Amino acid sequence: MRLLFLGDIVGRSGREGVLRHLPDLKARLKPDFIVVNGENAAGGFGITEKIAQELFDAGVDCVTLGNHAWDQKELLGQIGRLPQLVRPINYPEGTPGRGFTILPAKNGRHKVMVINAMGRVFMDPLDDPFPPVEKVLNIHRLGGPRMGPAGVDAIIMDMHAEASSEKMIMGHVLDGRVSLVVGTHCHVPTADLQILNGGTAYQTDAGMCGDYDTVIGMKKEAAIHKMLRKTPGERYSPGENDATVTVCGVFVETDDRTGLARRAESVRVGGRLGQSLPVV
Amino acid sequence: MRLLFLGDIVGRSGREGVLRHLPDLKARLKPDFIVVNGENAAGGFGITEKIAQELFDAGVDCVTLGNHAWDQKELLGQIGRLPQLVRPINYPEGTPGRGFTILPAKNGRHKVMVINAMGRVFMDPLDDPFPPVEKVLNIHRLGGPRMGPAGVDAIIMDMHAEASSEKMIMGHVLDGRVSLVVGTHCHVPTADLQILNGGTAYQTDAGMCGDYDTVIGMKKEAAIHKMLRKTPGERYSPGENDATVTVCGVFVETDDRTGLARRAESVRVGGRLGQSLPVV
Amino acid sequence: MRLLFLGDIVGRSGREGVLRHLPDLKARLKPDFIVVNGENAAGGFGITEKIAQELFDAGVDCVTLGNHAWDQKELLGQIGRLPQLVRPINYPEGTPGRGFTILPAKNGRHKVMVINAMGRVFMDPLDDPFPPVEKVLNIHRLGGPRMGPAGVDAIIMDMHAEASSEKMIMGHVLDGRVSLVVGTHCHVPTADLQILNGGTAYQTDAGMCGDYDTVIGMKKEAAIHKMLRKTPGERYSPGENDATVTVCGVFVETDDRTGLARRAESVRVGGRLGQSLPVV
Amino acid sequence: MRLLFLGDIVGRSGREGVLRHLPDLKARLKPDFIVVNGENAAGGFGITEKIAQELFDAGVDCVTLGNHAWDQKELLGQIGRLPQLVRPINYPEGTPGRGFTILPAKNGRHKVMVINAMGRVFMDPLDDPFPPVEKVLNIHRLGGPRMGPAGVDAIIMDMHAEASSEKMIMGHVLDGRVSLVVGTHCHVPTADLQILNGGTAYQTDAGMCGDYDTVIGMKKEAAIHKMLRKTPGERYSPGENDATVTVCGVFVETDDRTGLARRAESVRVGGRLGQSLPVV
Ligand SMILES: [Fe+2]
Ligand SMILES: [Fe+2]
Ligand SMILES: [Fe+2]
Ligand SMILES: [Fe+2]
Ligand SMILES: [Fe+2]
Ligand SMILES: [Fe+2]
Ligand SMILES: [Fe+2]
Ligand SMILES: [Fe+2]
Repeated sequence: MRLLFLGDIVGRSGREGVLRHLPDLKARLKPDFIVVNGENAAGGFGITEKIAQELFDAGVDCVTLGNHAWDQKELLGQIGRLPQLVRPINYPEGTPGRGFTILPAKNGRHKVMVINAMGRVFMDPLDDPFPPVEKVLNIHRLGGPRMGPAGVDAIIMDMHAEASSEKMIMGHVLDGRVSLVVGTHCHVPTADLQILNGGTAYQTDAGMCGDYDTVIGMKKEAAIHKMLRKTPGERYSPGENDATVTVCGVFVETDDRTGLARRAESVRVGGRLGQSLPVV
Repeated sequence: MRLLFLGDIVGRSGREGVLRHLPDLKARLKPDFIVVNGENAAGGFGITEKIAQELFDAGVDCVTLGNHAWDQKELLGQIGRLPQLVRPINYPEGTPGRGFTILPAKNGRHKVMVINAMGRVFMDPLDDPFPPVEKVLNIHRLGGPRMGPAGVDAIIMDMHAEASSEKMIMGHVLDGRVSLVVGTHCHVPTADLQILNGGTAYQTDAGMCGDYDTVIGMKKEAAIHKMLRKTPGERYSPGENDATVTVCGVFVETDDRTGLARRAESVRVGGRLGQSLPVV
Repeated sequence: MRLLFLGDIVGRSGREGVLRHLPDLKARLKPDFIVVNGENAAGGFGITEKIAQELFDAGVDCVTLGNHAWDQKELLGQIGRLPQLVRPINYPEGTPGRGFTILPAKNGRHKVMVINAMGRVFMDPLDDPFPPVEKVLNIHRLGGPRMGPAGVDAIIMDMHAEASSEKMIMGHVLDGRVSLVVGTHCHVPTADLQILNGGTAYQTDAGMCGDYDTVIGMKKEAAIHKMLRKTPGERYSPGENDATVTVCGVFVETDDRTGLARRAESVRVGGRLGQSLPVV
Repeated sequence: MRLLFLGDIVGRSGREGVLRHLPDLKARLKPDFIVVNGENAAGGFGITEKIAQELFDAGVDCVTLGNHAWDQKELLGQIGRLPQLVRPINYPEGTPGRGFTILPAKNGRHKVMVINAMGRVFMDPLDDPFPPVEKVLNIHRLGGPRMGPAGVDAIIMDMHAEASSEKMIMGHVLDGRVSLVVGTHCHVPTADLQILNGGTAYQTDAGMCGDYDTVIGMKKEAAIHKMLRKTPGERYSPGENDATVTVCGVFVETDDRTGLARRAESVRVGGRLGQSLPVV
């Protein structure tokens, strides 16, 4: 199967960048399943049902979230009815929404599980992400129907975290049991994509889909003021320059029998960053 | 001029990786100046005079440091006599060593200034890195002798920091005034190399020179134990697998007149990460 | 019932201070149950079985811990056989030892439950302390045998945390269901003892049992060097001046029927801090 | 001289508590100089010129601030003309306002210097507070006119910080050179008041002037929701129950010749906390 994962969409320019590049990405990469992290899609802060729907309409199969999940408060009341929207699995019990989901691939034959988890190093206190992920992986195993009715054909884990160490640990701990562990949250694509020893594709951060002539997607002036002056300044708002928007992510081809990665390549299209577009 | 910057060397395997690849890198890239971050060179923790000397002997022109600068305590007594060794500029007044240095390029004609600064977000409390950097840049300006006797031909800033935002802000604030702002500390190469609007090359993290089948250079078992179990486990020690060592960094060609970047490319050689080697 | 809780014992001087003052405290306060936090009892770092035993021999009924629980590694192998030693309840599943315990009061008639939990604000990532505490309190209810065989006569919760807000939240959340919520970890006694609306005694920090002519129990020089110089200095070691050791804690008298607090007073004896010794 | 310092005023109930108790405190303690920390006076967030004026009108001689200094943005434009308002001294160069001030005592004969500094442990990155404080103390020495025209008769240092260790280090470092080092920010009075070896009065935290049936001055419900649920809830707002407002601080009598502390006692009046009111 071919899996495409795109990192945190930041604001209007990031959304439009994704919508602009998606047709070509679909034509070239023929992905069977597309996941996008949407935690910054609404003006940099959270996502709304409407924006999520726009992404689904454009062919995105699943949207993941992160620490900005609830910046648009109304999502708390909507997420329950949005099976394609996944929030971090290690939020407290009783949090609306789901921490993983199983959805059909575009080919109609395969099932893809998407898990979203949040790191804790340099982030808000949250429960340990490892036990709930273990629990899910003990039920839904990679390998398709061979693994029984709960088997799935591919597993994508979006590890939303600040520290590279914490993401790598998730990669190694899940190695051999999921198709892809990819980090989000740092808004910078990393160049450390590899297939780990057990067959899991791993990249520390997918990078954002947004304006890279900014400070992690936000206009420079406000971010610089806050860092240097320590007095309140402008509100943060996403960069608006479409010419410097890069759509960033990871493309993985899995072995249909094992669900593990056979090939993995980074995706970076548009803007000023070094371009990377796998040839399928 | 051609500048080569390599990220944090981690332990024996990282040092040997650098020494193994450096002859070929020198032959192909013909760098006029080579900088390496050495804060983890000694068993993952700090650096000794002997190790620094080994690097200088191999053709490294300058070694930068970071939060691990003093892990080998004896360096405090040695750094004063090592003009090619730079520690973060925003340590408290009275800290041994220097926060920037000006050294001759290999061609004998040019002068290169190297500044090392440390970020504060998610790191130990330290003075603001921006004012001392401004002070230095007000004296030593890019542009060579045209800028007077204090002029320099290239300026490399190693911004040792955890948060991508803080590194980007340093990039934007110095844009047009230095040749390269490159981050270190995260031990993961980023794929966001670009030449900023003002002509400064920028990459959020150079990545480490070390074993990438690890947790940021350290053996997996100890790091996983600590993260998952929260009880004391094995001591941390660097990965030892030479086959998975990648030497990571950034290569920049500057305009001889302005000292700004004309071309910038990432460097990744050896190991399992996607290879990147500029053709000069 | 009369309950005496003493805060973090720091090093030799703290231990000896407790042993020196305990006979008089027992004579005057006639406590039915004595709890001491022992996370810094062994040279400032952790506790050993031998030290714990010394405290039990002196009449301490229960010792609680905190983030320094495992500084003396061998405790990991010993804690399983020490029913009077309690470590934070929100350590990962599988951590040796217990997060709460139920022990007989000195009068032989009553049962006292002691819970130890750890905060997460400004501390290492850990699971949410609230759910496991709720679980325990749903089984073992205050009110003695009237509440069935799992009923207990007093409940003491040691909330080991940095942020005053997090300790207060624990106090309010448990108000009316436990006898005492007392904070530890900050090594400074607070003067905010009160009986909350529901009948639970609350003090944000018990204060340490240790040398107060120090920096939170540790000799001044090393702590000042580290804070000001940011270079490695002397190892931290506990203050040694017995004349400035204060034994700090909280004394609570509970209603025998409800187990709630009828009276609560701070305890501070010895050294230079303002003395406080309830008259019973 | 007699000095009265009161901790962080939180919201309307805290302000009214101070105004209600101040006449009696003035009558009993006959303070020559009164300082209040006002960083939370305006609805819990910052202070306005109008509120500061109200405090000055009631007899407060100086108001200090902290990390909430600029929550009411307009203060940035007003603080320059308010000589009795002091903000942390270690804000970046160019920050409006002053980090220390020298004001006449009520007796008209003495001069009192007030310094406000901010800690960095568990707080936002800021410059080291120690060097600027040293600089001020090298100019303005305790001891009155005997020390030359820059001599002052009393020095009060408000160390606004989270970590008790950082406050204690400030106390020990300034011991013998200032009249009082008192912490603010934690909103909990500590019971560790002492006169240090060199003659400086020290208390880790003054405690807030506010409603203690809350979470550090803020209504319980919102704080509990945020801690337990990790989803957005009610806005934070100060507690409103005047019956549980305690006015907290420190009273110091200095030696008129040396300016050092001869006597120091905690002040806690009103509400549910243990009352403490020195007899003068
Ligand atoms: Fe994000
Ligand atoms: Fe995020
Ligand atoms: Fe490093
Ligand atoms: Fe580092
Ligand atoms: Fe402790
Ligand atoms: Fe502790
Ligand atoms: Fe405050
Ligand atoms: Fe504050």
